[in-house]
Amino acid sequence: MTDYNLLLLPGDGIGTEIMEEVKRVIAWFNDKTDLTFTYEEDLVGGAAYDAHGAAVSDATMEKALATDAVIFGAVGGPKWDGVPYDVRPEAGLLRLRKDLKLFANLRPAICYPALADASSLKRDVVEGLDILIVRELTGGVYFGEPKEITDIGNGQKRAVDTQVYDTYEIERIASVAFDLARTRRNKVTSMEKRNVMKSGVLWNEVVTATHKASYEDVTLEHMLADAGGMQLVRWPKQFDVIVTDNLFGDMLSDVAAMLTGSLGMLPSAALGAPDPATGRRKAMYEPVHGSAPDIAGKGIANPIAMIASFAMALRYSFELTKEADLVESAIAAALDRGLRTGDIAEAGAPTVSTMEMGTAILAEM
Amino acid sequence: MTDYNLLLLPGDGIGTEIMEEVKRVIAWFNDKTDLTFTYEEDLVGGAAYDAHGAAVSDATMEKALATDAVIFGAVGGPKWDGVPYDVRPEAGLLRLRKDLKLFANLRPAICYPALADASSLKRDVVEGLDILIVRELTGGVYFGEPKEITDIGNGQKRAVDTQVYDTYEIERIASVAFDLARTRRNKVTSMEKRNVMKSGVLWNEVVTATHKASYEDVTLEHMLADAGGMQLVRWPKQFDVIVTDNLFGDMLSDVAAMLTGSLGMLPSAALGAPDPATGRRKAMYEPVHGSAPDIAGKGIANPIAMIASFAMALRYSFELTKEADLVESAIAAALDRGLRTGDIAEAGAPTVSTMEMGTAILAEM
Ligand SMILES: CC(C)[C@H](C(=O)O)[C@@H](O)C(=O)O
Ligand SMILES: CC(C)[C@H](C(=O)O)[C@@H](O)C(=O)O
Repeated sequence: MTDYNLLLLPGDGIGTEIMEEVKRVIAWFNDKTDLTFTYEEDLVGGAAYDAHGAAVSDATMEKALATDAVIFGAVGGPKWDGVPYDVRPEAGLLRLRKDLKLFANLRPAICYPALADASSLKRDVVEGLDILIVRELTGGVYFGEPKEITDIGNGQKRAVDTQVYDTYEIERIASVAFDLARTRRNKVTSMEKRNVMKSGVLWNEVVTATHKASYEDVTLEHMLADAGGMQLVRWPKQFDVIVTDNLFGDMLSDVAAMLTGSLGMLPSAALGAPDPATGRRKAMYEPVHGSAPDIAGKGIANPIAMIASFAMALRYSFELTKEADLVESAIAAALDRGLRTGDIAEAGAPTVSTMEMGTAILAEM
Repeated sequence: MTDYNLLLLPGDGIGTEIMEEVKRVIAWFNDKTDLTFTYEEDLVGGAAYDAHGAAVSDATMEKALATDAVIFGAVGGPKWDGVPYDVRPEAGLLRLRKDLKLFANLRPAICYPALADASSLKRDVVEGLDILIVRELTGGVYFGEPKEITDIGNGQKRAVDTQVYDTYEIERIASVAFDLARTRRNKVTSMEKRNVMKSGVLWNEVVTATHKASYEDVTLEHMLADAGGMQLVRWPKQFDVIVTDNLFGDMLSDVAAMLTGSLGMLPSAALGAPDPATGRRKAMYEPVHGSAPDIAGKGIANPIAMIASFAMALRYSFELTKEADLVESAIAAALDRGLRTGDIAEAGAPTVSTMEMGTAILAEM
């Protein structure tokens, strides 16, 4: 018997509703298997701001640092549009990423066969699509200093953000991408803007050197990030693993997610480096979609991305491959049986609630 | 009778081939109308590097500053992959934009009805699409300092790029977007990452203030740039004018261009501020596509984006609206007659050469 600890941070909007379904999946494992998951639940985002005046409290950060894996819902909503910059809901998410040192963000873009028609792209362009975006998550323009707005006189302000990358940051994310490619179709496409950005020049140089030093068996391709966005729309199946920086990764993974027509279905993992002593790595799992304030509280949100994020935790934090497969197959089976939440239903077709979808997935397990 | 001066900079790759077709359109106007276009031709990009060791020579810059409008082909190719950063082909393009102060980049993404099926998106998603991306072109991370790679010891390098925006830079590009929206469907969507970037915060603030001060009749909407990328893929027809910064504009306009299935068809304009004395504005017109080294020299490139760029020059530099309409209708007519270069032909269908397409367009004029 093994014990796994989790910290659940449902956050705002639909975050709380879809996290309920993860709790039911956890209960299923505790009940039906000899695995034991224990969890605590806490606040993040707007909910944390309302309670503590910070988007994530120090006490919550301590729990996040101590747990085996954080399961994160979504943050933000119009209610907090006016709060100060440093305590806006997203600041909680960014602090978790930064303080847990979760530099590697894995964002699979998979087109579920049952949903190929939900995409705005033609069926043959997206059917069977399976790409993995590996996004650097603790560097770049998200965290570089200076990052400020100053008054420069004459009624003028000046805003500055700074993109910074050091060799080791690029090296370690490239290694993650190459390692993952070896478990897939063995190809990595690195994207940057070396024709305009010095960070792109260094990115290109370090990825190339990492490839040469340790991964020559993997096919490596370089693409300018703007061309990469184009190619994602033109023929996404040309890609296997894409490795890119924090900001390009943000943009490109959203475009890739939308290609699949399955935004409500896509999970992500944010991983730190393995602890040299224990081999354990800090990690946080979250859906790619946001808090969807427009449908929050109605019980109609799609819980699949959230449940699939828990499956990623099983796979990447606990090496419970069989169990991860079980959850993922149950999701696919529920879809094959025709169950659809509103976001993935065809116009006029019947839809199920968040809880009904959760129940259907549990039934398939 | 009026005289217009042009500087043609064909550049590299297919740039030289497609510029030939513009020359034929110019000859047609000189021949058949009482307008007179005179032009000089010069080098830019890799071609300029080979001749002068710079991606654009000082002498060429002087001509560009003196002419009424620059017509630019495309730059770059594998031949120059190894040249020093400061003289890489793109540096010529960037210097032209910067030194001519072409802060407003207009990038229409139009889906030609005859080509709706060439898109990877479903016909109903893109048919009739007509959006205009207004990209800031002389600021942001493209030109901010510091921009450097330094040695920080222990085998580590550090790359830094700096995104800088001042109030006036945002104000003037927002005004361009609002003015253009008034001539279209009266809606502007502003895109930034205010949840992560201080420049996004200022961008949002200044666009909002500009709207309030002078454009309250135009509908203004704000969208995070990553969500904007998603929405472009999901339902692009929700947009009319999109205004965004240099780097997001680069990414988003490429995605938008690819949606239309008409990349080889899309022109762009880069405009400066009107001269207070003469009312004239400096301007450069160029296709959205690149130099396509893989098909260069074969005479098969699609000249439409290049010819449509010349049409934009007629419209924006010379206020020759009727003449611009004439060229644009001739392009549409040639397409309606079924003429296709390789890039827009269906598999197995007959294709025409660069010159044949040019001839067909001239015939329709
Ligand atoms: C919420 C926001 C700060 C975040 C980001 O920009 O990283 C989100 O867009 C994401 O992709 O996870
Ligand atoms: C060639 C390159 C420097 C340029 C840019 O990044 O602006 C191009 O991608 C464009 O969009 O005009």
